Amino acid sequence: MGLKTREDYLTALRKLRPNIYKFGELIEDVTTNPATKRTVESHCRSFDASHDPDMSDLYTTNSVFTGRKIHRWNSMLQSSEDLISNMNLKRQNYRRTGTCSGAVCVGWNAQNILWAVTDEIDEEFGTNYKERLKNWILYAQEEGLTVAGALTDAKGDRSLKPSQQADPDVNLRIKEIKKDGIVIRGAKLMICGTAASQEIFLLPGGAYREGDKNYALACVVPRDIEGLTVIEATRPSDRRDLEDTAEADVPNTGITQGLLLFEDVFVPNERVFMCGEYKYTSKFIGYFTANYRACIGACVAGQGDVMVGASVLMARANGLSTKTFTNKLVDMSINNQVTYGLGVGACALGTQHPSGSFIADTITAHTNKVMVATLPYETKRLTQEIGGGIVETGCMPSFQDFTNPQYGELLQKYYKAGPASAESRYKTARLSEWLTIGGGVPGCMHGGGSPDGARLMVRFGTPFEEYMDYARKIMGIEEEIPDPPKKK
Amino acid sequence: MGLKTREDYLTALRKLRPNIYKFGELIEDVTTNPATKRTVESHCRSFDASHDPDMSDLYTTNSVFTGRKIHRWNSMLQSSEDLISNMNLKRQNYRRTGTCSGAVCVGWNAQNILWAVTDEIDEEFGTNYKERLKNWILYAQEEGLTVAGALTDAKGDRSLKPSQQADPDVNLRIKEIKKDGIVIRGAKLMICGTAASQEIFLLPGGAYREGDKNYALACVVPRDIEGLTVIEATRPSDRRDLEDTAEADVPNTGITQGLLLFEDVFVPNERVFMCGEYKYTSKFIGYFTANYRACIGACVAGQGDVMVGASVLMARANGLSTKTFTNKLVDMSINNQVTYGLGVGACALGTQHPSGSFIADTITAHTNKVMVATLPYETKRLTQEIGGGIVETGCMPSFQDFTNPQYGELLQKYYKAGPASAESRYKTARLSEWLTIGGGVPGCMHGGGSPDGARLMVRFGTPFEEYMDYARKIMGIEEEIPDPPKKK
Amino acid sequence: MGLKTREDYLTALRKLRPNIYKFGELIEDVTTNPATKRTVESHCRSFDASHDPDMSDLYTTNSVFTGRKIHRWNSMLQSSEDLISNMNLKRQNYRRTGTCSGAVCVGWNAQNILWAVTDEIDEEFGTNYKERLKNWILYAQEEGLTVAGALTDAKGDRSLKPSQQADPDVNLRIKEIKKDGIVIRGAKLMICGTAASQEIFLLPGGAYREGDKNYALACVVPRDIEGLTVIEATRPSDRRDLEDTAEADVPNTGITQGLLLFEDVFVPNERVFMCGEYKYTSKFIGYFTANYRACIGACVAGQGDVMVGASVLMARANGLSTKTFTNKLVDMSINNQVTYGLGVGACALGTQHPSGSFIADTITAHTNKVMVATLPYETKRLTQEIGGGIVETGCMPSFQDFTNPQYGELLQKYYKAGPASAESRYKTARLSEWLTIGGGVPGCMHGGGSPDGARLMVRFGTPFEEYMDYARKIMGIEEEIPDPPKKK
Amino acid sequence: MGLKTREDYLTALRKLRPNIYKFGELIEDVTTNPATKRTVESHCRSFDASHDPDMSDLYTTNSVFTGRKIHRWNSMLQSSEDLISNMNLKRQNYRRTGTCSGAVCVGWNAQNILWAVTDEIDEEFGTNYKERLKNWILYAQEEGLTVAGALTDAKGDRSLKPSQQADPDVNLRIKEIKKDGIVIRGAKLMICGTAASQEIFLLPGGAYREGDKNYALACVVPRDIEGLTVIEATRPSDRRDLEDTAEADVPNTGITQGLLLFEDVFVPNERVFMCGEYKYTSKFIGYFTANYRACIGACVAGQGDVMVGASVLMARANGLSTKTFTNKLVDMSINNQVTYGLGVGACALGTQHPSGSFIADTITAHTNKVMVATLPYETKRLTQEIGGGIVETGCMPSFQDFTNPQYGELLQKYYKAGPASAESRYKTARLSEWLTIGGGVPGCMHGGGSPDGARLMVRFGTPFEEYMDYARKIMGIEEEIPDPPKKK
Repeated sequence: MGLKTREDYLTALRKLRPNIYKFGELIEDVTTNPATKRTVESHCRSFDASHDPDMSDLYTTNSVFTGRKIHRWNSMLQSSEDLISNMNLKRQNYRRTGTCSGAVCVGWNAQNILWAVTDEIDEEFGTNYKERLKNWILYAQEEGLTVAGALTDAKGDRSLKPSQQADPDVNLRIKEIKKDGIVIRGAKLMICGTAASQEIFLLPGGAYREGDKNYALACVVPRDIEGLTVIEATRPSDRRDLEDTAEADVPNTGITQGLLLFEDVFVPNERVFMCGEYKYTSKFIGYFTANYRACIGACVAGQGDVMVGASVLMARANGLSTKTFTNKLVDMSINNQVTYGLGVGACALGTQHPSGSFIADTITAHTNKVMVATLPYETKRLTQEIGGGIVETGCMPSFQDFTNPQYGELLQKYYKAGPASAESRYKTARLSEWLTIGGGVPGCMHGGGSPDGARLMVRFGTPFEEYMDYARKIMGIEEEIPDPPKKK
Repeated sequence: MGLKTREDYLTALRKLRPNIYKFGELIEDVTTNPATKRTVESHCRSFDASHDPDMSDLYTTNSVFTGRKIHRWNSMLQSSEDLISNMNLKRQNYRRTGTCSGAVCVGWNAQNILWAVTDEIDEEFGTNYKERLKNWILYAQEEGLTVAGALTDAKGDRSLKPSQQADPDVNLRIKEIKKDGIVIRGAKLMICGTAASQEIFLLPGGAYREGDKNYALACVVPRDIEGLTVIEATRPSDRRDLEDTAEADVPNTGITQGLLLFEDVFVPNERVFMCGEYKYTSKFIGYFTANYRACIGACVAGQGDVMVGASVLMARANGLSTKTFTNKLVDMSINNQVTYGLGVGACALGTQHPSGSFIADTITAHTNKVMVATLPYETKRLTQEIGGGIVETGCMPSFQDFTNPQYGELLQKYYKAGPASAESRYKTARLSEWLTIGGGVPGCMHGGGSPDGARLMVRFGTPFEEYMDYARKIMGIEEEIPDPPKKK
Repeated sequence: MGLKTREDYLTALRKLRPNIYKFGELIEDVTTNPATKRTVESHCRSFDASHDPDMSDLYTTNSVFTGRKIHRWNSMLQSSEDLISNMNLKRQNYRRTGTCSGAVCVGWNAQNILWAVTDEIDEEFGTNYKERLKNWILYAQEEGLTVAGALTDAKGDRSLKPSQQADPDVNLRIKEIKKDGIVIRGAKLMICGTAASQEIFLLPGGAYREGDKNYALACVVPRDIEGLTVIEATRPSDRRDLEDTAEADVPNTGITQGLLLFEDVFVPNERVFMCGEYKYTSKFIGYFTANYRACIGACVAGQGDVMVGASVLMARANGLSTKTFTNKLVDMSINNQVTYGLGVGACALGTQHPSGSFIADTITAHTNKVMVATLPYETKRLTQEIGGGIVETGCMPSFQDFTNPQYGELLQKYYKAGPASAESRYKTARLSEWLTIGGGVPGCMHGGGSPDGARLMVRFGTPFEEYMDYARKIMGIEEEIPDPPKKK
Repeated sequence: MGLKTREDYLTALRKLRPNIYKFGELIEDVTTNPATKRTVESHCRSFDASHDPDMSDLYTTNSVFTGRKIHRWNSMLQSSEDLISNMNLKRQNYRRTGTCSGAVCVGWNAQNILWAVTDEIDEEFGTNYKERLKNWILYAQEEGLTVAGALTDAKGDRSLKPSQQADPDVNLRIKEIKKDGIVIRGAKLMICGTAASQEIFLLPGGAYREGDKNYALACVVPRDIEGLTVIEATRPSDRRDLEDTAEADVPNTGITQGLLLFEDVFVPNERVFMCGEYKYTSKFIGYFTANYRACIGACVAGQGDVMVGASVLMARANGLSTKTFTNKLVDMSINNQVTYGLGVGACALGTQHPSGSFIADTITAHTNKVMVATLPYETKRLTQEIGGGIVETGCMPSFQDFTNPQYGELLQKYYKAGPASAESRYKTARLSEWLTIGGGVPGCMHGGGSPDGARLMVRFGTPFEEYMDYARKIMGIEEEIPDPPKKK
């Protein structure tokens, strides 16, 4: 049966070979190590929700292949409603954890996009990638897997193609094609949710031409596959996570990014879904970003909802009425609803691929990416404005000081304001701080690609000549008015 | 058969009793008077499109009642797809005319919202409003009517209810209920599309309580009904319309607003759909604004598309490459896509009323209204920035000067720049001017209600307490933290 | 004595040869013709203020040459305080007229910038331009002249230099150098304040190189000089000015732009201040725009002040308390104070030229130009938001309708709201309309040059390499990190 | 002689009694403890600059009292030029350290504002505060002291006055007035620069009325005065500071905030400058915030300059040309120049107090505060947008990982891009991260008070009624139009 529990999941994680490092040390158990236990807990809550009567409709669905109940994050997305449910799950997840869905998000999208792309590849080349993928999906549904997705290569010199790089490994590549599988080498950087994942999709990081066919690669591997080393990235605030103080414990959630180093890793054929079919890399990128950038509006809306909630709480903890900040709170809510509603619009305007996969509308999705890279920053700014100085500048003592036998009581006396206890005010300020300048800040700017990339897609998607013709027709201008020729 | 032609429409308009005035004079024929002929022409293009193979799918559909082909603007809206088609028609209409759809827009929405509201009223009171409405809809579909919709009352003192006003007429009211109909009195101001309409829906202008039941009124009347006088509003630029110069002729389109003065007008029962059922006025307003504010995003996107086109044209007419302004043009396109895509999102998140009518999602629709009251202003600003001084400050000679025998040739010599002829550059500048500071500026700020009203709806629609609870749960704060009590 | 009265000024204007046309007709008397009388009245108020004890300190000063009392707009600007007084005069002027200072602004700046530039030219070439200029300034101070300033040429193909144009006249040029003067030919377009001016400075429209020395030209000419024809530009709303209704009469002020056509105009040597010294054209442009763009912040602040006032008035006329809109009014005030205060900052950071003229700080002045091209648009948007539908969409009847014997009384009954009379509400709405979409909209986007030009100056003025070095030093990065070489 | 060296300063700091705690432990030596050594180093650079021929004009001046050369941060501010020099010192300081000037900023302002306020108090009450202050200033100039300034009280319940609080200590208060001095008790929170200061000004935290005269208190105390305990605040990223890695070492600078706990501290009379004269607390706040909020524009401009530099560096380290980001870099530069230039404008518009102190213009200063609370956030957003994913999400390994013997080399291979070495790219990314989400983020939102407080001052400073009268006059409206009366 495809529905797993928190305990099943933790057991599965513990069975994986330890291959994740942070601060120079091997993490023996991701479920207990302070560097990773928070993000694991955050993922556990998705398993909890799958069994919670109030949320199971959102977190589970039935497999289109077997009809059996599965976690929604292992399901096929074949209608705009499916995509919108994907959004709703992620917005709700953010509300419950304050953070990104990681390994119950990117792999899900990857599996569905590959479903469309393998369909096209098989059609042209007579390969059987889609069947391989289906077998893996059935397995993932059965096991209720959490799956990360890895696109971003190290890239090296940005002005050169992968095959032109001094070091061929700076983009993940097929080093050798064997009878029963392939050997891959290189790195994928900044991969969200790795530490909490059981498997990882390896996906093309760009649109490649013929000379770079060895980089046209898609497959899925266990997180602990032989030859893979993962280094967890660090962010400014994560040393605080290492401590067992109330300050460090809150919030008991989080997301981490991994750097994946592949040293001649063998991937068996049944896990390979693209192998040199370079011209489908741009198709993959196009479909993937459309869905990803449509749906990411739900994530930042969910985080925004928590910022709204934290701001209400903070106002009260400061002894002020919520009404004092009505205008700002409404502005925050509007920001949230723009990214969410626009994402839903991109889904509603999408089209179904012949394979069954549903692809969001390109120009609307990329427009949403630009909003996602802009509006949440204003929402964070407002959270800091409402929260006051103790939120903004982190102007709070450490928890060791707050509870210090010598002067802790004195400190607590001075941090009391309004109806909340000093400790609740302390915690509330830590939440707003965490959301705006700490570990809770989402990677909404470059996650899923840069806003300038999105602007480029909007540019390509806007029919400027057609719009100019409307203008000409309205004015009755018969004359052709072309772009002036380039001057030498 | 429900599909009418431009000629049918013009004939129908000419048959109406002249009851429209402007500049102190009666307009004998709205189809030829310079004050109204442009907006009539603009509406004619919807009839043209209904017969154009490239656009008939968008401008026509089949009646859910009769199965016969009808103009889409007479159709029922019973699914999110129907609402999105409404949006698409209006965006396309803007592209072709540069202006608002007027009488093929508001009446359409009114008919569908009343369909839901009469369903509820009939259910409670055993009235037969819905049947009356259905009969009228069948008639409107058969005749292919253009129908305006009138909500805004004169209102008088904003701090008083209708029944408390010194003059009871400042809100349109039921003066007398007769056996076979009602007598109404008062005014509706700023009614879009009146001059091009054949009929007008009269609708509640606010949410009324018991004491104001005489103001709870919905009906539909011919535009030339006995006792109704219409005064056309004037805007700063419309005296230019009165001239028959090339300058005035472009664009040969436009929208106008009417002020409706009702002096004891008798409306027969079969045209009355609400008569005193005050508690349904707030229902009406809620449903109406949800759909209106979702869909208006398409209108301003369409106007934005024309501004994009005009800007490309203007750049070239100035002798500059489109590329010079890529960033600004992409920003404009993003603005357009936000209001359109967010509106589509509001439609996709909507729900079907038991009556069959489809109602867009409230909070998303009102969020879109705030975008609509903001983003197009930035798009206009960019149109002026790209266009240069001749667009912004209207720094062009009049057409009389441009063609003056004495110095016209000299002027034309100096207005030539780049590849376009002086005349094309002149016309292009007039278009950007018209779109940004002339007759083409849409009423996107207050049309369909004020943005502050929309912000209020976002406020009511945002579950602040629920969001605060998410924040508390994330932090493990058990303590209740209420709003501080009001100090005396 | 240098102080003239309104009557002196009107008399002087009437003495000028009629050479201004609009709508194809010669304007015999600019002081009475409806197309120009409003802007003349607006200039008259500066003469009034010069004699008003409350304002004479602002509108007059003592000549640095003669010590005699003169109109401030004829004075030398030789300190940051002088520049700030220039700003204060213009902000105050806007408050009193709602519009641009026109011919008491640009000529004033031109005279002072030429003072610096002629000083440099004389130094290099041994010419006596500065002495000529001084003589003219003494004359202007004595006569209390209003003086326009003309930079913008017709330009033709923007990708070609003046001397490369198919038609050499598309930039104003020296056609012939005679013993006692020069003959000039060409056009200057969009010249603010021409109709109310007595004289006009003709100034270089760009930075020219050697091949274009015939375009390096500065002089001052009477507005009615032989061979000069002026065509008044038209804007969408100005036909309303032609009517003598209450609607048209308000506001009894305004600004107009003229198109200047020079057909072999002879300018005597004593009025010529640059004649071929091409390399000083870029100096002129640099100094001129620095002062102009610093000080223009005062103009838009002044117009913003009137928009604030109109919004307060409109709220009340609508029957609402000012408090309803506190946040928006404060935002408007902030916008005003940013452009004003930043302009003052540019003045305070300026430097005195060896000639005595004071030049504002370049990067701050151009930064202010970008603000001026942005913030007033938001202020206008807020004016429309506060004003309500009757402001935004011009949804008011014409004055002919408002006073129509048949239905005017009925209209007035319906336009009464709150404490104001219907007529005051009507007038107030017309003011907000005029300020935001009518004749009162200032040319703040391109007046004094385009914002993209200003951005270019900010780019040149920002020491990017120096700032990068600060970053390197902070991080202790020794390595040089240059821009990557261009790929072929 | 008043000019001290870095060594003098460090020696002086080491002589102070250890009374600062962090993470529950006493800091024995602020100059070497990792929690405080960075901010001390940052202050050392001001002493270095005072002796650097390139910068000594900016960092030193002559005492108006003794004529001797002193550090500028101990000088009197008696003209707009003095205030602008204050701004220039702080902008330059930010460029050299990437952070806030702390104890060479707030105390400086406090001393000058108290100069004005004591002048007024002495005038009314015949006290000799100003003489006391002068003696202390002479001492501070002689010793070249670094001086913090403390306004913010703990405050307790925001809806109650200090004397109404359950705990009288939640605002710093005079507990006892003795013959030779006063005993004070309470707390000051979030005090910038404490750890690097030698003395601290204690200043009124609000405008008090008669009942709160015991809270009307101004004095200056040594940082290590008996009875004072300081707790250093913690921010999310500061545990990284505790490590001695390249990651932690950069930048070798920073600012910290202290929480000051006063337990019956005796302050001798010669250090007391206000003691119960409650009505001068509002004067103090008004003058203080005017100067502080004018000048803070220089600080955020300086930090913005470093963000510009870091972005150029980051682009190149990523292998991209600076030109790729021209528009964004210019936008950043514009943001910087707005806050700087507007601050200069506020200084230039200021007035000299009869005491000699110069006070910036109120409304302009508070307008600048609103800009300071807004624009730097956009600059940070752009820094993250330009920097790419490795900046935004902190997606870099820790320095322990980056140099790990097992896989460090592999990591470095993958972090190489473009012309920069992997290590330089690593460091550059850490700088942008530090500036935007790490220890380098300035407290520009609430530092010096909240933006809503500033908006309130703009509201009070805007003459709404006067502006309304301009609007009325322009329209010739004679009628009075007051605010509608409040409805019951």
